[in-house]
Amino acid sequence: MPTISRKGQQMPQSPIRKLVPFAEEATKEGKTIYYLNIGQPDIKTPQIALDAVKTHSLEVLAYTRSEGSEEYRRKIANYYKKHHINLSHNDIIVTTGGSEALLFAFGSIMDTDDEIIIPEPFYANYNGFSTASGVKVVPVISKIEDNFALPPIEEFEKLITPRTKAILICNPGNPTGYLYSKEEIKKLAHIVKKHNLFLIADEVYREFAYDGNTHYSVMQEEGLEEHAIMIDSVSKRYSMCGARIGCIVSKNKALIQTALKFAQARLSPPTLAQIASEAALETPQSYFDAVIEEYVERRNTLISELQKIEGVKVANPKGAFYCIAELPVKNSDAFAQWLLEHFDVDGETVMVAPAGGFYSTPGVGLNQIRIAYVLKKESLIKAVNIIKEALKVYKD
Amino acid sequence: MPTISRKGQQMPQSPIRKLVPFAEEATKEGKTIYYLNIGQPDIKTPQIALDAVKTHSLEVLAYTRSEGSEEYRRKIANYYKKHHINLSHNDIIVTTGGSEALLFAFGSIMDTDDEIIIPEPFYANYNGFSTASGVKVVPVISKIEDNFALPPIEEFEKLITPRTKAILICNPGNPTGYLYSKEEIKKLAHIVKKHNLFLIADEVYREFAYDGNTHYSVMQEEGLEEHAIMIDSVSKRYSMCGARIGCIVSKNKALIQTALKFAQARLSPPTLAQIASEAALETPQSYFDAVIEEYVERRNTLISELQKIEGVKVANPKGAFYCIAELPVKNSDAFAQWLLEHFDVDGETVMVAPAGGFYSTPGVGLNQIRIAYVLKKESLIKAVNIIKEALKVYKD
Ligand SMILES: Cc1ncc(COP(=O)(O)O)c(C=O)c1O
Ligand SMILES: Cc1ncc(COP(=O)(O)O)c(C=O)c1O
Repeated sequence: MPTISRKGQQMPQSPIRKLVPFAEEATKEGKTIYYLNIGQPDIKTPQIALDAVKTHSLEVLAYTRSEGSEEYRRKIANYYKKHHINLSHNDIIVTTGGSEALLFAFGSIMDTDDEIIIPEPFYANYNGFSTASGVKVVPVISKIEDNFALPPIEEFEKLITPRTKAILICNPGNPTGYLYSKEEIKKLAHIVKKHNLFLIADEVYREFAYDGNTHYSVMQEEGLEEHAIMIDSVSKRYSMCGARIGCIVSKNKALIQTALKFAQARLSPPTLAQIASEAALETPQSYFDAVIEEYVERRNTLISELQKIEGVKVANPKGAFYCIAELPVKNSDAFAQWLLEHFDVDGETVMVAPAGGFYSTPGVGLNQIRIAYVLKKESLIKAVNIIKEALKVYKD
Repeated sequence: MPTISRKGQQMPQSPIRKLVPFAEEATKEGKTIYYLNIGQPDIKTPQIALDAVKTHSLEVLAYTRSEGSEEYRRKIANYYKKHHINLSHNDIIVTTGGSEALLFAFGSIMDTDDEIIIPEPFYANYNGFSTASGVKVVPVISKIEDNFALPPIEEFEKLITPRTKAILICNPGNPTGYLYSKEEIKKLAHIVKKHNLFLIADEVYREFAYDGNTHYSVMQEEGLEEHAIMIDSVSKRYSMCGARIGCIVSKNKALIQTALKFAQARLSPPTLAQIASEAALETPQSYFDAVIEEYVERRNTLISELQKIEGVKVANPKGAFYCIAELPVKNSDAFAQWLLEHFDVDGETVMVAPAGGFYSTPGVGLNQIRIAYVLKKESLIKAVNIIKEALKVYKD
């Protein structure tokens, strides 16, 4: 038999996938499951985006330019302008989701065995993209006690080696919900300039900043032009995850030219989804206001319900739609599986993401779970109650 | 300034992109251009596919499963059955175009510095995917005199080293138009089994087999189950290149499991395009009959017109919609640019792809061009006439 690559063998399983068979089994047994494990919101996609693909008059569903249609890129630049980010459409390459933007960024700046520093816990697929790109993730631990704020900048500095090519942050954070302050971004800017690194900011949750906080983008930071790479996506912003449209943004011309070569090799981002995404840019502010209000209410509900449970510690998220909770269990992986297999309250149970997969340091976060507040308030209350009841009887 | 990766620096420019600025300039100057340079057909997408995205009732444009929706994969398996390829939906992972299927295949079976043998001339982006994956293309030259038939199998054998992981063929071929015979596939099957390699067959042009020839897939070859990886795509089949839907197919379970991990990292293939592609499977045979008839007529026209030009040698394509022509010039790259910049017949000129980019051996194919017969017969006649007139006056 021909053999699988080492890289392929090392590719991590997504931390959630392991649980899918158990969820399927539970569903077969008639259990209802509250899915709090993935970032697939129940929020409706703006009608204007859905309508755009219904009314187009294409006769040939053709490739677009590899970097995305110029019209769409001009409109994206315009959208950023409204968010106090000044750039040209030439600084933007449209990608197949934020996922592909991350792959292009990794490929453009790192070779085999290069290193990228990432505060953990972090979006689990950063591990997959790193393995696929043959590069090494070097984690810096951020703590639940600090709400997962930026670790002291000296912690980063200690880890920088000649192989370090970039620091990657997610702002606001998945899975932490943490929103970096302007001061924190400035600290990062200082260190990447000092050590001549790239600063990749995954800002796919930009719109989801709560409690009057405003999001500060790496693209707003003056003097960081050659260092900053922004990753973006329509997935969460317009609840259109299935579109698969994102972009990589940078004022570093060499970076964009390089990413473009990766883009050209795969020909084109999806055409229908670009039509939908272009239309989505016309989504009225009222849509976002309502969505943010909804998420804030959900978060408040979720956090206050979780805090009522004895032995549960929870970070207070200021953005995105995730929170990390520490449970009085040894192994949240086993707990999550047990919830699906052996527990229910009136035939209902809950699926959460064990947080171990969001850490790269072995053994850390094993008593934590990530909850995505992508369901309605009533469901969240029921789901947290299930966790509460479960903890009363669960034994590791 | 932080630096670009070696890999990024080595990523090849697509052989066509260099010419784009000249084409844009020519258009600005009021020239009409016949675009014979890219595989973007003018054929209409089946109405049934376009309609499907107009009539869907999605409210949330959500992710699908990373491997594609089960329903769609079952229907794909059914489509293959009609083409005498027996497999299960579990042998299929839906990808973002054939492009992504190639990337998943490369990532799943090769590590940095591994080698893949490919008969050249080959689809230029194989170079890009190889560079992106850090692997080395080892070319075997196929000849225009043989219509680009499979080179003697000993030529492959000579090149196999401990680092060789796979042989990659494109069948029918882009840019050659060559359709491999059953005997040729059997020879390849023998050698990959003997040396324990994978045989990747890019079959995105499967339907485009002419002159009563039938396509023989690597998936039909008995005993090759653990070795065969098929790459497929809806792009050309239904003239829906912009959908970005393809698949990777193999009965090798370890391979599919590994490719699935790459798929999970990027979450989901495009949802709207899967809806269109699923509907496209209902395209009536009459559509294909008409399309094939059209391409055969175009090919016949193109080849006979080219053969009339003194000093032009042309391979006779039996499939796909490309042909390679050898011109009485030293450097087809310069010639193609000159056509755009300095030549026209009544304000019209033509854009072709210099064939150098389809070879990996330096210096080979420099007097060849690839012509995609993706335009109507009348346009092809005019375009070839332009080439003919141009050759009368062109001096390298
Ligand atoms: C932090 C983060 N980055 C990137 C992505 C990728 O999203 P997409 O590829 O759908 O744009 C996600 C999706 O959940 C995410 O949470
Ligand atoms: C031989 C070959 N393989 C793969 C592809 C990739 O096509 P897509 O990604 O659109 O499926 C192409 C496109 O031209 C091709 O010619």
